[in-house]
Amino acid sequence: MEIDKETLEEGEIFSPRFNKDGLILAICQEEKTGEVLMAAYMNEDALRETIETGRAVFYSRSRGKLWRKGEQSGHFQRVKRIFTDCDQDCLLLKVEIDQGQCHVGYKSCFYREVLDKHSLKKTAEKVYDPKEAYSKEAGQSGKQS
Amino acid sequence: MEIDKETLEEGEIFSPRFNKDGLILAICQEEKTGEVLMAAYMNEDALRETIETGRAVFYSRSRGKLWRKGEQSGHFQRVKRIFTDCDQDCLLLKVEIDQGQCHVGYKSCFYREVLDKHSLKKTAEKVYDPKEAYSKEAGQSGKQS
Repeated sequence: MEIDKETLEEGEIFSPRFNKDGLILAICQEEKTGEVLMAAYMNEDALRETIETGRAVFYSRSRGKLWRKGEQSGHFQRVKRIFTDCDQDCLLLKVEIDQGQCHVGYKSCFYREVLDKHSLKKTAEKVYDPKEAYSKEAGQSGKQS
Repeated sequence: MEIDKETLEEGEIFSPRFNKDGLILAICQEEKTGEVLMAAYMNEDALRETIETGRAVFYSRSRGKLWRKGEQSGHFQRVKRIFTDCDQDCLLLKVEIDQGQCHVGYKSCFYREVLDKHSLKKTAEKVYDPKEAYSKEAGQSGKQS
């Protein structure tokens, strides 16, 4: 459905604009603390399932399929509220998490600060052992959370 | 420079991974309140200028050129800290703003909540009049902030 700019920006019709690859950006923010946790893409199915189930589902571009966050690691994201931006090509998910959610073992994926053009500094500690989380289920590749 | 997965994820070398279009995603969050303001893309020049000047610069895909946020509207973003995510294909900018920064007139671009698959609800009030902000300089098209 094509809608005009004013309706898109000022209206109250949800009209998510997927890009040419059928994807829309989703930013996840912890509702309680405001901490930005990660960003990923959703296709139409992932967005529908997220709204219907209240659990964050993305589309994995590397694996070419739906990525039900937490399916392997147990680190689900419970989606409390969803917001859209002005031109409806980006979503903001306010979520609850149990512990960490980054596959490297940190709570947020943004655990390093950029100091200058070439260097980073870690600003957080790991909150879980990813090796343990991803080996829970035998036969799983353990590649992503 | 190609670096291995462990260095990329656990190291302290800043190695931003631009996509096939030469862009990297940047999320802007108000440092003081934690409010997520917007998301946009940077190319290498935009990132370099952002780091060098401390003002957020993006790459406008629609206009095909650098987008110095605030150049027209005066609503600059002062970048206090920058973080990178685990696989270094997304940046998080902690910024200071004066007032609004969304071109529609709101503080954040995320001023509408998704109620269900089809409808939105406004959750914020405008903080400035975009018509006024974009007409400050004669001869400007006033298209973007």
